[in-house]
Amino acid sequence: MKLPPTRLRNLTVALLEKRGVPADSARLQADLLLEAELRGLPSHGLQRLPLLLSRLDNGLANPTTRGNGTWQRDAFLSIDGERGLGPVVVMNAMRVMQSALKETGLAVAAIRNANHIGMLAYYAEAAASDGLIGIVMSTSEALVHPFGGTQAMLGTNPVAVGIPADGDPFVLDLATSVVSMGKINSHAMRGLPIPPGWAVDRDGRPTTDPHAAKAGAIAPFGDAKGYGLGLAIELLVAALAGSDLAPDVHGTLDDIHPANKGDLVILIDPSAGSGSTAALAAYLGRLRLSRPLDPTQPVAIPGDGARARRAATAKTGIELPQPLFEHLTALEAA
Amino acid sequence: MKLPPTRLRNLTVALLEKRGVPADSARLQADLLLEAELRGLPSHGLQRLPLLLSRLDNGLANPTTRGNGTWQRDAFLSIDGERGLGPVVVMNAMRVMQSALKETGLAVAAIRNANHIGMLAYYAEAAASDGLIGIVMSTSEALVHPFGGTQAMLGTNPVAVGIPADGDPFVLDLATSVVSMGKINSHAMRGLPIPPGWAVDRDGRPTTDPHAAKAGAIAPFGDAKGYGLGLAIELLVAALAGSDLAPDVHGTLDDIHPANKGDLVILIDPSAGSGSTAALAAYLGRLRLSRPLDPTQPVAIPGDGARARRAATAKTGIELPQPLFEHLTALEAA
Repeated sequence: MKLPPTRLRNLTVALLEKRGVPADSARLQADLLLEAELRGLPSHGLQRLPLLLSRLDNGLANPTTRGNGTWQRDAFLSIDGERGLGPVVVMNAMRVMQSALKETGLAVAAIRNANHIGMLAYYAEAAASDGLIGIVMSTSEALVHPFGGTQAMLGTNPVAVGIPADGDPFVLDLATSVVSMGKINSHAMRGLPIPPGWAVDRDGRPTTDPHAAKAGAIAPFGDAKGYGLGLAIELLVAALAGSDLAPDVHGTLDDIHPANKGDLVILIDPSAGSGSTAALAAYLGRLRLSRPLDPTQPVAIPGDGARARRAATAKTGIELPQPLFEHLTALEAA
Repeated sequence: MKLPPTRLRNLTVALLEKRGVPADSARLQADLLLEAELRGLPSHGLQRLPLLLSRLDNGLANPTTRGNGTWQRDAFLSIDGERGLGPVVVMNAMRVMQSALKETGLAVAAIRNANHIGMLAYYAEAAASDGLIGIVMSTSEALVHPFGGTQAMLGTNPVAVGIPADGDPFVLDLATSVVSMGKINSHAMRGLPIPPGWAVDRDGRPTTDPHAAKAGAIAPFGDAKGYGLGLAIELLVAALAGSDLAPDVHGTLDDIHPANKGDLVILIDPSAGSGSTAALAAYLGRLRLSRPLDPTQPVAIPGDGARARRAATAKTGIELPQPLFEHLTALEAA
């Protein structure tokens, strides 16, 4: 069913406020989930809300904290998320970091003990809107096998990069797995096979059965290189945040464990550098106009697709599975 | 022909010193080239030396400068490489950055106007040897086409990450192209076709002819994700270093233009963070022992292969094409 974004936003805010989340934090968490829906990333959208509400109910998510930050060094902010809501802790960290940038030019926030931070593009784009370069990484439960391996040993370990340019910013957001577990779930629900190369089953055998894949492991993207990148993110986050490594991580997919993964945010003030946002925009323009493989599909810049989907969905409404909407409205009435 | 590393090292140092490079800088540049040979990366080894010597002869490489650095902010070092030798400028930047880390916890150096910095793993590993996390990026001439495109618009834009762990460090070094131009050159020299998916020809048609590929463009690794990552590196480096963007870059493959690409180095002191090198090493150990796809090929950690090749080659000697060795010895005698 198609629903107006405003209806879903108000519903989400109400459900969060009912559990003690202050209005501004509830609006922020709702905005993150709605932005994922608007950009066509439902795996990071409202289907995550019931779990989050359970986590608030179970004391695994603290409705009021913004996290407790300590400047370990002038540009190094260490944050205990105190079980806070992911976007509340991250956006607060970014606000605090900005105060340091005038002196330092760049800063890092290493975050542990925060709940799921959702779609990373949200933060990268927020940084770019403030004229800053933002690099965001996050770890997760073990879902991905190493290149040449068959056991789930790494998180999906996404990274997002936002870079200001004249006009639209560059906003990259990619998981280092070849596909998200959300997409495998969606194939399973629709009874469709998954393409070869996406996953192995519990015994490490390549599989096209999405149910077998859910019990097994997803492949890294880009073979050895994507594996290397995902592993670098796994180690970087754990080294700086002191968070757990994938095989020991819980709490982003369940409502019984604290979230012990980690998150990193690096902000850089490009005005300290020697480049120009006009030069970047001119280059991106050249890329868009460069010769495409398929004449009907111009070369795309990361962020273009999400912006186009966002504009379209804001008009047509958000497509939500009816059972999910009914579940949320029942919670609203409860 | 197999040659002892010491013979090649002395030869390289002598050729550089003859062109006015001070002894310590000559040893550093030689070490970078020899390390590439030892690790089985000849495209970044001594086959780059004749071009570098020409660049010194032609005034495109300054034998004596270490680059001119300015702290734009407390953690942001802007460097004019003054046409210096790549490794000399980068290693000097890393030395200068270390003085800031005690206060700031992390720092970035944005470098323009330095010559080719070669194998990035060298710097990432040097950082890890000092107990630091090192992230290094570099841009280049346009050699890579966008995902969905067919024209060379991006550099091969490598990134390296070094992370200290108990025992051996994690050292990742990857180009964001599916393959290096060096490997395509090597197929061309040996008269072998290249696999489908590596490259397109001058007219944008997929090709397995290495000669046609050399006139065309290389694919990014990992489809849209690898393209996005390569583009992020292209933009990050240009935004901070003020270097040129790939279609306008020259000077890493010729001896007629100044090198106008850029390089970035980020150093982070993990002692400011909350992680432990023991936990990282334990996790890497679990990964190595996890179930492999091929029972005869254990899961590898980035850096393992290079270390093994280095140890083997140090004993057996470096395999060098005879014409290259003869060319270098002729220059030595000249």
